[in-house]
Amino acid sequence: MFSNMKITDNKFVYIQLKDYIKSMILKGLLRADEKLPSSREMASMLNVSRNTVMYAYEFLQDEGFVYIKKGKGTFVSDIKVSVEEKWNIDWEDEINSYGKLSEKLDIIKHETKWQKGMISFKSIAPDEKLFNIEEFKKSFLNRMSLEGEKVLNYGYAKGYKYLIEYLLKYMENKGVDIEGKDILITNGFTEGFDLVLTCLTNKGDNILCENPTHNTAIKIMKLHGLNIKGVQIGKKGVDLQELEKKLKRDKYKISYFIPSYHNPTGIVMSPENRAKLYNVLKNYNVPIIEDGFNEELRYSGTHVLPIAALSGKGNSVIYIGSFSKVLFPGIRIGWILSDKVLTGYLESIKRARNIHTSSLDQAVFYDYLKSGSFHKYIRKARKIYREKYEFALECAQKYIPSREILGEGGMHIFIKLKNIDSRQLLEKCCERKVIFTPGDIFYVDDRGRDTLRLGFSRVSEDNIERGFKIIGEEIEKLGGTI
Amino acid sequence: MFSNMKITDNKFVYIQLKDYIKSMILKGLLRADEKLPSSREMASMLNVSRNTVMYAYEFLQDEGFVYIKKGKGTFVSDIKVSVEEKWNIDWEDEINSYGKLSEKLDIIKHETKWQKGMISFKSIAPDEKLFNIEEFKKSFLNRMSLEGEKVLNYGYAKGYKYLIEYLLKYMENKGVDIEGKDILITNGFTEGFDLVLTCLTNKGDNILCENPTHNTAIKIMKLHGLNIKGVQIGKKGVDLQELEKKLKRDKYKISYFIPSYHNPTGIVMSPENRAKLYNVLKNYNVPIIEDGFNEELRYSGTHVLPIAALSGKGNSVIYIGSFSKVLFPGIRIGWILSDKVLTGYLESIKRARNIHTSSLDQAVFYDYLKSGSFHKYIRKARKIYREKYEFALECAQKYIPSREILGEGGMHIFIKLKNIDSRQLLEKCCERKVIFTPGDIFYVDDRGRDTLRLGFSRVSEDNIERGFKIIGEEIEKLGGTI
Repeated sequence: MFSNMKITDNKFVYIQLKDYIKSMILKGLLRADEKLPSSREMASMLNVSRNTVMYAYEFLQDEGFVYIKKGKGTFVSDIKVSVEEKWNIDWEDEINSYGKLSEKLDIIKHETKWQKGMISFKSIAPDEKLFNIEEFKKSFLNRMSLEGEKVLNYGYAKGYKYLIEYLLKYMENKGVDIEGKDILITNGFTEGFDLVLTCLTNKGDNILCENPTHNTAIKIMKLHGLNIKGVQIGKKGVDLQELEKKLKRDKYKISYFIPSYHNPTGIVMSPENRAKLYNVLKNYNVPIIEDGFNEELRYSGTHVLPIAALSGKGNSVIYIGSFSKVLFPGIRIGWILSDKVLTGYLESIKRARNIHTSSLDQAVFYDYLKSGSFHKYIRKARKIYREKYEFALECAQKYIPSREILGEGGMHIFIKLKNIDSRQLLEKCCERKVIFTPGDIFYVDDRGRDTLRLGFSRVSEDNIERGFKIIGEEIEKLGGTI
Repeated sequence: MFSNMKITDNKFVYIQLKDYIKSMILKGLLRADEKLPSSREMASMLNVSRNTVMYAYEFLQDEGFVYIKKGKGTFVSDIKVSVEEKWNIDWEDEINSYGKLSEKLDIIKHETKWQKGMISFKSIAPDEKLFNIEEFKKSFLNRMSLEGEKVLNYGYAKGYKYLIEYLLKYMENKGVDIEGKDILITNGFTEGFDLVLTCLTNKGDNILCENPTHNTAIKIMKLHGLNIKGVQIGKKGVDLQELEKKLKRDKYKISYFIPSYHNPTGIVMSPENRAKLYNVLKNYNVPIIEDGFNEELRYSGTHVLPIAALSGKGNSVIYIGSFSKVLFPGIRIGWILSDKVLTGYLESIKRARNIHTSSLDQAVFYDYLKSGSFHKYIRKARKIYREKYEFALECAQKYIPSREILGEGGMHIFIKLKNIDSRQLLEKCCERKVIFTPGDIFYVDDRGRDTLRLGFSRVSEDNIERGFKIIGEEIEKLGGTI
């Protein structure tokens, strides 16, 4: 029986032996009180060292699979290996409406998938080739030697203290008055937005946002059962007249805006319009959730203050920030800056949901920020993405017949076509191995069928040109013109 | 103005200078189009290198705070620094019932807090002194060199592929048939449990569990608005007669059990009772959520199969596992093993909630598991906790007058007192700088006022003895006897 065991190279032999014996016991092939070969016999049978066998036996004893009788040998424990009668549940029938809706709105599952050889303009994730792994390692090793044990044990729901302090300062540097405010660390923007809606809204509440807007935000608003009212967005930000009209008509619980490098249009709301937006919402007492999306990726123009800065000592703006869009999305770190009272409630919800965000990730990320590595990285990243952005814009103007090309920064541009269905276009392009994100997924209503978002962060210049050309050609075939 | 700037040692000078100038601009102390001192002047004023100043200026330009006129110098950009009229919201009034309830049930906020010099038996977190930081570092560096860029970029909602494969094998080694099942990686048990309830239950549904049970689970069930029906637990697990009575009377959506080293009682459900429990619930078609809590910390006796193993090819058991209770809770990794169809829905909810669990943490943890470090650690941890457990048990029997002392493993024992209110006892003990967890928080009804949980994982033997003596003395003062 044991001589059939195949020992492979990629795992410790004692673990392989232990697991093999376990599986024999669980399958009933080794019975209770059966004696195992002595370590000497087993070692010679498998051609491994006796120590290896003894180590495996000790583990099995620890785990209660065997017992050792002194001077007599090692015996199989009396494990009740029984499988009860089969009982199957049709889980499809058990999923509630939230579960069903989550699946339905799960774009990753339902949109065209990337396949080998394709040029994909779907992603707006940062290009991992730009990550400075060596500096990240340094930060990791530094934190480990300073407080390794500590950050590997439980942390606090609110977040890692030093990171919170760093981010408060970071927000101050954006012009935000942090008096009476506090920060909660979250697993990225997504969790931050979900927590805020979980804490403040009830099913059926009205919420205001730009139309189009970030599709993940739309998903989360829908999952909360909110009535989403979108306001059109133009070159300087939301249409303020439409906004005021909506505010006059209905009562809103809260609003959500992306003033900088808006997703998907890339529009930057002007300082004047930020102030106007703020004042209109103030008049109707509708608090603002400000999405700090990609604020770090400005390429030109004067610095624009976030809405959270305009509010001064006021507490009506909830700012959600994240570096994930620029750096290390894999470690999922974001933050909510808001009024202290509100932060307290958000903290309790966070604790109920998942205790806290990885302390290790927070600590290493803090070190990376503090060490100046982030500054160095962001300079490099800005330069490279800016070049790509300018190149992509040029190619789009050259090759893609359109009504409008939008985007002032970030990692994507947004295109409005002339009477062309972007899903039909996607189908055609897909045949030629080019994919992109159809714009309709960013709309809160049934508009946007003639729009698309082109993310370029992870596409080479060659492929940007090649891909855009193909998109342009297919548009022309569908009857579009420059 | 600039000569007032204080340069400190703990941060790069160019960052300090940049932040200082930013804050001057944001405060309106530097006006639009004002010329900054030349890099030469500034360098001599601050006694820093000219390069440092130039670097700071370049950054400020990148961020849109200054502009450079060739041959003329560096000038302040026209940033619209305006603070609008103050607008305050009374957030207390805006929090919904879920937020209020989260705060109310947030034990961390409301229970007695540890203060310096106290002996605390509240924690059941692992002792970080046992963590092998060197091996963890090795795993980190190994993953970084193999796929650093990859794991720092976006991953998959379902989890890191290699970790999922490892855990499937791990579950097989516990005797679980994984055919037709799959794993979703979560941020610890807490998120796993919340996701399952989010996907399957509706407000007002009945749920069955042990009474007492894990207090975090109670909190989550309450936050989902479930009717929690507790079944008493004895030395061999839940009272099966009471269970059947309850099943006859009401319809249950789902059930939740902790068969191994039950929290808070430390009871291990016998193999026979696991089978009976399974069959009773099968008869009433009530699916089981099995909490694999601390299964790794068995100290004696024969291996007991999880309920998930008894179900064979059936799909009615949802197993939630986590190593956080034993190792590295700071990195928040757990998993749900369940039917593939169900896993698909859970994955979509996970994606909607926070995209995915940190890929970095998953990858490093996988490496740590695979490298054999986990095996070595768990042997050491088991030995040390076992000694502590035996010592704590002995001390409890010696010093603490009680009706019953429970606990067969893990990192805590549970004590039932004779007619003594454990909150009153806590108050007395707290005066003498000893704290513990009053047992009532683990009960789904108003029972348990005469119980307490004593966690010993992070308390030295000396302090265990000293603390238990004090508890015993205070019990006697309150009229208790051994």
